[in-house]
Amino acid sequence: MTETVLDARELYDFLTVEFPQIADQLAIENIAPMTARMRLHCDERHLRPGGTVSGPSIMLLADVTFYVAILAMIGREALTVTTNMNLTFLRKPAKEDLLCDARILKLGRRLVSGDCLLYSASGSPDKPVAHATVTYARP
Amino acid sequence: MTETVLDARELYDFLTVEFPQIADQLAIENIAPMTARMRLHCDERHLRPGGTVSGPSIMLLADVTFYVAILAMIGREALTVTTNMNLTFLRKPAKEDLLCDARILKLGRRLVSGDCLLYSASGSPDKPVAHATVTYARP
Amino acid sequence: MTETVLDARELYDFLTVEFPQIADQLAIENIAPMTARMRLHCDERHLRPGGTVSGPSIMLLADVTFYVAILAMIGREALTVTTNMNLTFLRKPAKEDLLCDARILKLGRRLVSGDCLLYSASGSPDKPVAHATVTYARP
Amino acid sequence: MTETVLDARELYDFLTVEFPQIADQLAIENIAPMTARMRLHCDERHLRPGGTVSGPSIMLLADVTFYVAILAMIGREALTVTTNMNLTFLRKPAKEDLLCDARILKLGRRLVSGDCLLYSASGSPDKPVAHATVTYARP
Repeated sequence: MTETVLDARELYDFLTVEFPQIADQLAIENIAPMTARMRLHCDERHLRPGGTVSGPSIMLLADVTFYVAILAMIGREALTVTTNMNLTFLRKPAKEDLLCDARILKLGRRLVSGDCLLYSASGSPDKPVAHATVTYARP
Repeated sequence: MTETVLDARELYDFLTVEFPQIADQLAIENIAPMTARMRLHCDERHLRPGGTVSGPSIMLLADVTFYVAILAMIGREALTVTTNMNLTFLRKPAKEDLLCDARILKLGRRLVSGDCLLYSASGSPDKPVAHATVTYARP
Repeated sequence: MTETVLDARELYDFLTVEFPQIADQLAIENIAPMTARMRLHCDERHLRPGGTVSGPSIMLLADVTFYVAILAMIGREALTVTTNMNLTFLRKPAKEDLLCDARILKLGRRLVSGDCLLYSASGSPDKPVAHATVTYARP
Repeated sequence: MTETVLDARELYDFLTVEFPQIADQLAIENIAPMTARMRLHCDERHLRPGGTVSGPSIMLLADVTFYVAILAMIGREALTVTTNMNLTFLRKPAKEDLLCDARILKLGRRLVSGDCLLYSASGSPDKPVAHATVTYARP
């Protein structure tokens, strides 16, 4: 349970098949046991007036990155669903790509919980734009 | 502080100017002191494989409905920003419009907090698809 | 699934056996399908300097009231455990008893979710001191 | 803003004066910029049947540790209050002392947000018993 069973290419291929509407907006930057890093390619669809990334775009990135971190550990389980997400908005994101570091804190048979730190691509994890805690239920 | 200062038409006009990308996806169904009801016109953009409304679409509706409930009480304050949102996903939404009932629990000078109940348009508030708690900060 | 299977007396007897350290601090005021109301008998143990009810006391009341609302619907299941609680603190509580109204939004076979509104006994649910969302897992 | 202004002894003295009811249950293990580690001395008051640490005790430790991390950065501000706490319960705590690592993610003039990881004293941060996100408001 401490090794990944899917690598970044396999995970991205799975995303492309399962979520074709969003896969092109996203890239997998890193996969390791119990963690994942993903990137949101920021474009007009993700922006709000004032040139900032929208809340739903932040949520999308957190949700998918945590999902990918789970799949890397347990394999392809398309039915795994989000049951809770708590988002804290910390700073106004710059008008650029967002990065997200997901961390699994408990990989249970029924529930998987952890958190995500989101920051601007030219910024630093020390100046996060948002923090999310996430719980997924397994079928 | 217990009367609305903007009506549904004025609020929707404000949304159209401030958030032109999303206003056409949304309708204001009802405005009353400390509450608002809005509708998400569900189309292909909001769906996930399996024919269900996506998490970011649910978040968008909750966020905007709570924002509109605040503006109805305090007037046009475009700088008011979300600081926290906690989403609990309860049931799989049907492939149809979503309704959202927002309720303000504390209208402070600095922080405004409350919650939102979201349900399918042909369903009932007794079978919600999601519940959200929201905190906004005023400038 | 819409009727209670335990009444207030049976539920309080169960609390007294399972949680003898806390049962005497609490009273069950009302039980109805999918809801419960409980009271915290406020004394020195629950106070903070400044004469306000402490955060952990607020959490205790919300947690137990939601638990009792669940047991009223499903019967005695001592192993049911809290998996998530989100607390929003809205107003400073008065130095007096607290009331809590719990509401179940989804009574699932594995997860039960809902929320709680907490207010001072001489106050009103319209001026809540705190709001909690709660998720319990069933064994 | 990246240096501490109070050390562990000064912080503990402040706790003893402001919160005499709880200070003896707690110890400050470490203070560093934007972080703090504290210990809950587990005794009968903190236990639940089955020999596990209670939810309100977990909340108390998270709340105080985050508060101490803030005070270390900004000095004595007794009026700083919790506005939101989101608790995820991950594993059943052992019947022993609990440790808590608090981390400030945003030290704003009005709001301070971050998170806490809680684990058993003989355990490891890799097997946390709970995770908390916390937001405090400054006066």
